[in-house]
Amino acid sequence: MTSGTTARAPASIANLGPGFDVFGLAVNAFYDEVTLKKTKGGITIISDGSVPSSPRDNTAGIVVSNMKRRFKIGGGIEIAIRKRVPPGFGMGSSAASAAAAAVAFDRLFRLGLDPAELVEFAGTGEKASAGAIHYDNVAAAVLGGFAMVRTDPLDVIMIEPPADLRMCIAIPKIDIPKKKTRVSRGLLPKQVRFSDHIVNLSNASAMVAGFEEKDSDLIGSAIQDVIVEPARMRMIPGFSKIKDNALKAGAAGVTICGAGPSVVAFSKKSADLEKISTAMAKGFASAKTKCMTVVCKPTKGAGIRNKAKAMP
Amino acid sequence: MTSGTTARAPASIANLGPGFDVFGLAVNAFYDEVTLKKTKGGITIISDGSVPSSPRDNTAGIVVSNMKRRFKIGGGIEIAIRKRVPPGFGMGSSAASAAAAAVAFDRLFRLGLDPAELVEFAGTGEKASAGAIHYDNVAAAVLGGFAMVRTDPLDVIMIEPPADLRMCIAIPKIDIPKKKTRVSRGLLPKQVRFSDHIVNLSNASAMVAGFEEKDSDLIGSAIQDVIVEPARMRMIPGFSKIKDNALKAGAAGVTICGAGPSVVAFSKKSADLEKISTAMAKGFASAKTKCMTVVCKPTKGAGIRNKAKAMP
Repeated sequence: MTSGTTARAPASIANLGPGFDVFGLAVNAFYDEVTLKKTKGGITIISDGSVPSSPRDNTAGIVVSNMKRRFKIGGGIEIAIRKRVPPGFGMGSSAASAAAAAVAFDRLFRLGLDPAELVEFAGTGEKASAGAIHYDNVAAAVLGGFAMVRTDPLDVIMIEPPADLRMCIAIPKIDIPKKKTRVSRGLLPKQVRFSDHIVNLSNASAMVAGFEEKDSDLIGSAIQDVIVEPARMRMIPGFSKIKDNALKAGAAGVTICGAGPSVVAFSKKSADLEKISTAMAKGFASAKTKCMTVVCKPTKGAGIRNKAKAMP
Repeated sequence: MTSGTTARAPASIANLGPGFDVFGLAVNAFYDEVTLKKTKGGITIISDGSVPSSPRDNTAGIVVSNMKRRFKIGGGIEIAIRKRVPPGFGMGSSAASAAAAAVAFDRLFRLGLDPAELVEFAGTGEKASAGAIHYDNVAAAVLGGFAMVRTDPLDVIMIEPPADLRMCIAIPKIDIPKKKTRVSRGLLPKQVRFSDHIVNLSNASAMVAGFEEKDSDLIGSAIQDVIVEPARMRMIPGFSKIKDNALKAGAAGVTICGAGPSVVAFSKKSADLEKISTAMAKGFASAKTKCMTVVCKPTKGAGIRNKAKAMP
């Protein structure tokens, strides 16, 4: 038995204000690690118990099963998951495990897949948590940086974010409903006013220009969303206060982190990031909700760890 | 009496597929020229008769009146308009006159306005034709290149287009209804399906990346619009055929030019642009409609002509 192949993949923020279902941003807040080992039979999962242990329900397990089938690879695989991205808080937790699994599998069997193929396989793992395939988080987790996704056919554009971009994320200590992503998608409107469509479209376009031109102020000012945020903010205790507080403390823009309930403030390295984080925590506190805060920046995508480490 | 100050401004393509009300692109297909002269009293208009002669109804006249009032400039002004952008065909004809008027006025009275102010004044002229202020065409006509507009507050981002980008425009020989822009806006849906919103948003985002990364293929492939084009295409005889023909002839993307009825195909310098143009003309012919075709490329914005020329 070998010591296995370990890949790690970052947390990611999807939706990103007006970029719903299209934008994703890899951040260095947390990383999941997945170690794959060849075994004699079946797919088995080792984890700390925070994720499903059945390969059919587990994000990494689904990715490994799909890749095994597609490339007609026999034998068994043991999947050890070191879960560090908190599941259910809008930080691309399942995408991180899926991306790490795809990258580790690719390396273990020396498939030499290109990034687009890795994104596609990682995307199959999203089904486990989201009930449908969305590539925004997995694209960011696989490729790193800022990813833009067009589906049908799948096409991913990756842009290197500005070096001075910083995010303050406030993660509330609340119970996450089961199938949260499905629940929060249920809050989305079926129809959008044409004028709102134009507002979000112009802001999303400005965000893309901001990432391309390495202009963190433009990114922050453009992260305004008049469609999804109004529909989902009631899921987040104290959202308006959190947002106001962060903006008053100097954040350039604030929005729901993924499908929530975390909230993310966009800012620059030169801002008082601790002040912004504290202001956001006070916003949650105003709704009698505790939270933890993380300051993070964009990061690169999933990669192989040079040395496989022992799993917990 | 001086010989006057002459500015010229280019035609422009607004809407640009998924970029409705947000994107504008200045093109070298046609230019309007406006010459302003100080006179003893009132605002008078000299033209070839294709545009209204009353300053209150004329795009350039409105711009000049508004600038005169804002900067408290007394005396009269003679506005001579050399109209070359065909009015009513979706090529930013009124915006070209408005942009040229604003730039000429700025120079004549040595105001030293910045580009954003020029866009704002030129935008007031759009009211004459569109019934409301839209900045997509005027931003392109003033600034040149690819312009993205966010309104409320007005913010314009200009991106230099790829050098190899080419457009084939087919301009049908049909009668244009009065208040065409208002009519074509009336065809727009009040509500947009959420899924369609996402499709157009992802395509618009990809277009911005295409302009930023000077990738004409990406621009062309992303210019797909599932909202405005389906609503407006019935205004254009033979649209589906024109589009199919152009794509088969090698165009990367095809969409309605502005509010129509012209049709624009996006392509690269290396493509067979004559073949694409002919294919589009055959599309119009299939609906018993004649057209003229123009091959053009992005151009810079409104500027002062070095030497004032005699008006026709």
